Amino acid sequence: MNDEHFMTIALQMAAMATGQTSPNPLVGCVVVKDNSIVGTGAHLRAGRAHAEVNALQMAGEDANGATIYVTLEPCSHTGRTPPCCEAIIKAGVARVVIASMDSNPLVAGKGVTWLKRAGVSVETGVLEKEATQLNRMFMHHISAKKPYTTLKFAASLDGKIATAMGESQWITGERARRDGWKERSLHDGILVGIQTVLADQPALTTRGVGTKTPTRIVLDSHLKLPINATIVTDQMAPTWVLTNRDVSDEKVNTLEALGIRVIKTDPHQLDVWLPLLYEYGITSLYVEGGARVLGSFLTSGNYQRVVAYLAPMLLGGDNALSSFGGKGIDSLANTTRLHFKQTEQIGEDLKIVLESF
Amino acid sequence: MNDEHFMTIALQMAAMATGQTSPNPLVGCVVVKDNSIVGTGAHLRAGRAHAEVNALQMAGEDANGATIYVTLEPCSHTGRTPPCCEAIIKAGVARVVIASMDSNPLVAGKGVTWLKRAGVSVETGVLEKEATQLNRMFMHHISAKKPYTTLKFAASLDGKIATAMGESQWITGERARRDGWKERSLHDGILVGIQTVLADQPALTTRGVGTKTPTRIVLDSHLKLPINATIVTDQMAPTWVLTNRDVSDEKVNTLEALGIRVIKTDPHQLDVWLPLLYEYGITSLYVEGGARVLGSFLTSGNYQRVVAYLAPMLLGGDNALSSFGGKGIDSLANTTRLHFKQTEQIGEDLKIVLESF
Amino acid sequence: MNDEHFMTIALQMAAMATGQTSPNPLVGCVVVKDNSIVGTGAHLRAGRAHAEVNALQMAGEDANGATIYVTLEPCSHTGRTPPCCEAIIKAGVARVVIASMDSNPLVAGKGVTWLKRAGVSVETGVLEKEATQLNRMFMHHISAKKPYTTLKFAASLDGKIATAMGESQWITGERARRDGWKERSLHDGILVGIQTVLADQPALTTRGVGTKTPTRIVLDSHLKLPINATIVTDQMAPTWVLTNRDVSDEKVNTLEALGIRVIKTDPHQLDVWLPLLYEYGITSLYVEGGARVLGSFLTSGNYQRVVAYLAPMLLGGDNALSSFGGKGIDSLANTTRLHFKQTEQIGEDLKIVLESF
Amino acid sequence: MNDEHFMTIALQMAAMATGQTSPNPLVGCVVVKDNSIVGTGAHLRAGRAHAEVNALQMAGEDANGATIYVTLEPCSHTGRTPPCCEAIIKAGVARVVIASMDSNPLVAGKGVTWLKRAGVSVETGVLEKEATQLNRMFMHHISAKKPYTTLKFAASLDGKIATAMGESQWITGERARRDGWKERSLHDGILVGIQTVLADQPALTTRGVGTKTPTRIVLDSHLKLPINATIVTDQMAPTWVLTNRDVSDEKVNTLEALGIRVIKTDPHQLDVWLPLLYEYGITSLYVEGGARVLGSFLTSGNYQRVVAYLAPMLLGGDNALSSFGGKGIDSLANTTRLHFKQTEQIGEDLKIVLESF
Ligand SMILES: [Zn+2]
Ligand SMILES: [Zn+2]
Ligand SMILES: [Zn+2]
Ligand SMILES: [Zn+2]
Repeated sequence: MNDEHFMTIALQMAAMATGQTSPNPLVGCVVVKDNSIVGTGAHLRAGRAHAEVNALQMAGEDANGATIYVTLEPCSHTGRTPPCCEAIIKAGVARVVIASMDSNPLVAGKGVTWLKRAGVSVETGVLEKEATQLNRMFMHHISAKKPYTTLKFAASLDGKIATAMGESQWITGERARRDGWKERSLHDGILVGIQTVLADQPALTTRGVGTKTPTRIVLDSHLKLPINATIVTDQMAPTWVLTNRDVSDEKVNTLEALGIRVIKTDPHQLDVWLPLLYEYGITSLYVEGGARVLGSFLTSGNYQRVVAYLAPMLLGGDNALSSFGGKGIDSLANTTRLHFKQTEQIGEDLKIVLESF
Repeated sequence: MNDEHFMTIALQMAAMATGQTSPNPLVGCVVVKDNSIVGTGAHLRAGRAHAEVNALQMAGEDANGATIYVTLEPCSHTGRTPPCCEAIIKAGVARVVIASMDSNPLVAGKGVTWLKRAGVSVETGVLEKEATQLNRMFMHHISAKKPYTTLKFAASLDGKIATAMGESQWITGERARRDGWKERSLHDGILVGIQTVLADQPALTTRGVGTKTPTRIVLDSHLKLPINATIVTDQMAPTWVLTNRDVSDEKVNTLEALGIRVIKTDPHQLDVWLPLLYEYGITSLYVEGGARVLGSFLTSGNYQRVVAYLAPMLLGGDNALSSFGGKGIDSLANTTRLHFKQTEQIGEDLKIVLESF
Repeated sequence: MNDEHFMTIALQMAAMATGQTSPNPLVGCVVVKDNSIVGTGAHLRAGRAHAEVNALQMAGEDANGATIYVTLEPCSHTGRTPPCCEAIIKAGVARVVIASMDSNPLVAGKGVTWLKRAGVSVETGVLEKEATQLNRMFMHHISAKKPYTTLKFAASLDGKIATAMGESQWITGERARRDGWKERSLHDGILVGIQTVLADQPALTTRGVGTKTPTRIVLDSHLKLPINATIVTDQMAPTWVLTNRDVSDEKVNTLEALGIRVIKTDPHQLDVWLPLLYEYGITSLYVEGGARVLGSFLTSGNYQRVVAYLAPMLLGGDNALSSFGGKGIDSLANTTRLHFKQTEQIGEDLKIVLESF
Repeated sequence: MNDEHFMTIALQMAAMATGQTSPNPLVGCVVVKDNSIVGTGAHLRAGRAHAEVNALQMAGEDANGATIYVTLEPCSHTGRTPPCCEAIIKAGVARVVIASMDSNPLVAGKGVTWLKRAGVSVETGVLEKEATQLNRMFMHHISAKKPYTTLKFAASLDGKIATAMGESQWITGERARRDGWKERSLHDGILVGIQTVLADQPALTTRGVGTKTPTRIVLDSHLKLPINATIVTDQMAPTWVLTNRDVSDEKVNTLEALGIRVIKTDPHQLDVWLPLLYEYGITSLYVEGGARVLGSFLTSGNYQRVVAYLAPMLLGGDNALSSFGGKGIDSLANTTRLHFKQTEQIGEDLKIVLESF
């Protein structure tokens, strides 16, 4: 059994908690002694034990002299929990194998240094690429201080989200919509413009798919959100509204009384409220529209992933709505070139995913 | 060896001539005696021998008492060549196995009847689906009396063919453009609007890819085609212009002197000139743009296939050009639902093909 | 997220301990609350905590009201550890989902009954087939009271393990031999006849492949095992000898002094010593030869799996050794028909695995 | 369109005649003008037109100035037909593209030289590997002057063709036997020993599978072939007997009167009668058994291919018949190492094919 073998299992451990660790990264840990696994652990939720702690606890005395495989550099600072480096040393671990280093440049390498000083043998970079890919959401938000953002649209093959007469339901089919619920569940927040709420009365939930209940966030400059909107009344998930600072206190109070969080900001300044959402705990964001909202993410370059559901038809029309409105990109040099990551037929439609690597 | 085995070989024979039999269908024929192939043939070009004649000639006296496998019902009328039914009977063939029937309803079945009356055993429908798929271009034009039409566009994932500022070269990459040359070579004609000619000076050739030199057809109401345009001067393929009836004789004469065919019609009435192109021998048409031209095919429903090359990026913009311009489709019920037939990454881009079956 | 999703993760947890739990089965457990995983565990080694205990410990108070997914029916008896049913109930678990039932018919169902009486909701049979396949070794030995037995041979395509002149090294290549080490590591014991030891001086170890150090067992009626044999002197793994009851005490003492376990039995009575090996803790056995030893397993029907490494050549010869010697099977009706489970080219050779399902 | 494209079609043409050109090779030819195919041909049977002649005839005057693609070097000598080089030059062909050279070293290169002297442009080696693989049977027999020989056996996984008590029907299943009929049809002759005829009364036909009726050949030193044997009476294919020179004239006359060809030779001297079979037109031979006959092919090294059908079971037994009897191979260095070419589950059994490249 080699290091790759056990690190693969540590990555499996990490992946088990997909969608439930935000804002923390996915981390898995395996303790190995005499070529046998004597402890396994994962970081399961923010505020709970780190992966190393869980794994060491399961290993008990077997940790003494053992090798541990951990997908992220063990922490060296005292947070909500004591530093894992301390726990590792205390348990008598002989060797630590690490996939990827701490993504916070201020801290990266400190764990390794601490361990080495204590006489622990340390190896890094084992399955690093796999570990980085697994935590791409976390890697982004921790360095950008903004949510990892996915732009989603469902359109005809030529990119239209409605006919010239405005008909938009349903261009893509039932199965594509279901897949969209799963995509939602991978994010902390789902964002739409108020026009989408008024036009479609969406629930913006995951229908029980996935392990998360993402927060529903409405961009609503003039606080037009009706108090009988589904997302106000259904109690299925938290709902937040981003609105202007000068909206009427009365409406604010009414909404807040209904449990809605009203955030006063400048809704037209995406670069203002996107970091704000991050501060409020939204480390990943799924933007569903409408066209103008998507357009503002596009032109500001604030996206890391695109999910398109395309129907096998054409709609055309100079005046028919395209998926991304607003002023658009001026020059080809100014847009982000991503990569086709996934292409999959779902029902009659085609799901296409772009990612940056 | 069973009938499917030999019909598969006959279909292979037919497919060898792909792209070179227009306006005729692809037809292949195999003569079998004592379980051995004693003759093979295909229809190679309009005006040349039918598949059956080629195969019977190769078989010689072995055709006597043989079975022949032919992908299309043998012809029963005297055209540029005598009827194949006659040749089959004369050769003493004992049994004829047919994949698909003649697609001309006025004639379908007559060959079978003739053969049976002459005492030849006839079986039909063997690998019929495969034969129909192989000749889908022919099957369409022969019944519709209009070219089988492919709409092609190259765009960003959100369907934009240029940025808001009009920049359009190059959204998709070199390898996608090469693939486009191969697609061109499958059609009798390539159609573009005059704006595309003026803006891009395209050559509209296949660069030696494929077996065809498709005719280049420009939709040019006011006969603005410059006499120094590449497609006028390069002599690489025939060039036709569809223009208004009231254009100046002088310009017409100049162009005709340069070898350009000027066709006077009503360029705004697609339903007038599309059958005209068919009359002039264009049985399959590849429409490359621009957006307005593509839009007129879309709204009139005159297309059987869509080829999209999508780049891994977004452009957006309310005023950026979409792939299909004009008024577009009013209602979802009024557009044609096709099927995703092919999805293939080509270089950095994605090629997507829609077909009707 | 549905039950299959979480049971799949529980099965992943179980599989992590492959090769290290003997004589116990592989068991995995996942604790889920509010659609999130709050604890994971596996049974890692005999004598250590059961999967449920590990998972409940990680979950802590979150186990209250949670659902637990466990791949095997929770135990209801006090063994080296208290019964898991008790722990589950004490933790306040609301619902238990089980893949496969306890394979001991005396106990099967008792855990479910206990849980239900305590008011816990219980569901069984989720991914049962996968769980059974995962534990096929355990399922066999627990009911048969004999080791799960794999017969291995390496031969020419026509089944010869040596030329007519007796040359046998090397018919199959280096990479096939390496794969054989991995196969060894999946079993508690490796069995060979004394002739094989004398002829080849094999080490019978796993060369560090796998998580196990299987016991080396020699069938040696007359206690001919040389005291300088590799398996006697190398200290790499335990070595046992099965010998006649009347062998000389002196040789027994000499071998025992060298750390070899000498087991007096009737080596010709496989049905006597195979259950004995099981009693001594060998729950799975890998039989490597020679031909006579393999033949006795074949004729007695004591095997559940066959691994063949075949070289791309023929050797032939009426007197050349075949893989399975002795009297062989009399009638086709008397041999076990298995299924081709795996076929894989390894280097120049072909690995073929037969299993019973 | 490039040379590979058209040579691929020429190879398709050649492959159509698989199994019906013996003793000649498979040859295909395509005539191309202006990037279009104007003629196609294959060599269909010994004594009939060469591929080039068929293709040039279909092309007619279009051959003038054309390129022809031919899978084998055009012939330069006058055989049953005039040399193809002459026909190519006479037709005015401008360029000849060749896949593989004539396999007769006395003649190889003469065609190319002739063509070049006549001013024809010649290119060789296009898809040469594919062409060589296609004609591997021909390539062998033309240089070895012996049939390309396939050894076939059906056995248990451990290579036994019968139980220790002699039971042999049926180790492998119905579907494997059907596949065997197809294998037979690829050869000119099927060879068995007289014991197999006496024991199993086999028909040794292809049951209509394939395009050939291979000759049935019995190795029968003492002319024991019963006059009521299936292969004597069924008239389904020619039957030959290889027997000693001193057998009774009466039995010879009786068999000859029944249409059996009796060949007097030394049946124990494979190296005598194998070239004799080749002289009599057997360019490929399928050897089905019994074990002794297969053994003599093995020890003399007279085989190029092995087809094994293995059943998912073991039979064992020192005295049970192995697939290849006789004295077998002495030393590993003396057997032929082939390659696993194909592994395919057929019904419950496994088909394994060894070839030399
Ligand atoms: Zn930590
Ligand atoms: Zn015809
Ligand atoms: Zn338990
Ligand atoms: Zn020739």
